[in-house]
Amino acid sequence: MDAETRALERPVDHKREVRLWLRLLTCTTLIENEIRRRLRRDFDVTLPRFDLMAQLEKAPDGMTLGEVSRRMMVSNGNVTGLVERLAAQGLLERAPNPSDRRATLIRLTPEGRRNFARMARAHEGWVAELFAGLSPPQGETLMDLLARAKHSAAAACE
Amino acid sequence: MDAETRALERPVDHKREVRLWLRLLTCTTLIENEIRRRLRRDFDVTLPRFDLMAQLEKAPDGMTLGEVSRRMMVSNGNVTGLVERLAAQGLLERAPNPSDRRATLIRLTPEGRRNFARMARAHEGWVAELFAGLSPPQGETLMDLLARAKHSAAAACE
Repeated sequence: MDAETRALERPVDHKREVRLWLRLLTCTTLIENEIRRRLRRDFDVTLPRFDLMAQLEKAPDGMTLGEVSRRMMVSNGNVTGLVERLAAQGLLERAPNPSDRRATLIRLTPEGRRNFARMARAHEGWVAELFAGLSPPQGETLMDLLARAKHSAAAACE
Repeated sequence: MDAETRALERPVDHKREVRLWLRLLTCTTLIENEIRRRLRRDFDVTLPRFDLMAQLEKAPDGMTLGEVSRRMMVSNGNVTGLVERLAAQGLLERAPNPSDRRATLIRLTPEGRRNFARMARAHEGWVAELFAGLSPPQGETLMDLLARAKHSAAAACE
C-alpha cells in the first residue's frame, strides 16, 4: 500500500492520541511492575492482594464482593480466590450484611489491618520515590490532566 | 494508634504522590478495560494478543521472544502461549536468526499483517474517541508530564 492509498484509507490521523495512550500505558506499567517487585521482595505479597487489602482498609464495616470487584475494576471471579486465601490466613473475615442477608460482607481482621498498615507505609515511600522527578506544581497539573482524561474516557465508555 | 503517634511514625506525608499514582492507575485501567472490551466485541481478540501483534508489526524482519517480552513488559512465559496460538492460526511464523542460531525470530505472516491492520485502524479511532475531551495543547502537556514521570520512575527502578 503506497502513501497515497494509506492517506485515503485513513482520512483522519489519530497518531497523536495513540502516542499519548502508549505513553500513559508505559508509564503506568513501569511503576506498577516496580511496586509489584518491591511488594514481593519486602513482604512476599502479590499486587492484587495488596490492592484488595487497600480497598477493605477503607471500609471498616465491610464491603460485599461485588463492591470490592467494582472498585478494583476486576471480575468477581478474580477476587474470590484472594478472599479465600486472606481468610485462611486470618487477615480477613466475613460479617453478616444488615441490609441484605444473601450478600455477606468481608472486612479486615485487626491482624489484617496491622499487616496492611506496615505495607502501606512502605508503599507510600516507594510511590514518593518513583514520582520524585516531578515538582509539586507539575504533580498538580498532571493530576488535573489525568482527571480530564478520566472523564473523557468515562464518557466514551457509556 | 492516635493521631500523634501516627504523625511521629510517618514524619513525611506522601499522600499527594499516592493520590497521583492512584489516579494514573485508574485512568489507565479504565481505558485499557474499554479497549479490551471493544477488541473482544468487534474482533474476538484478547488485548495481549493485539499487543503482541502490534510489537511484531514494527519489526518486519522479526524479533526474538526475549525482545518481544521486554517491549511488552511481561515475562517470556506469558508470550510463549500467545506465539503458539498465533502460529497455529497462520498469523505468525518463525524465521532463522542470522545473528544467533539458537534464538529464532518470530514475525507476522502477510495474513497476520492484514489482520492486524484492520484492528489497528479501529483501535486508533477508539483511542481518539477516549481522549476526545483533551485539547491538543492539553494532550501535549500530558505527554510531557508523563515523559517526566516515566524518567523519574525509571531512575528509581535502577
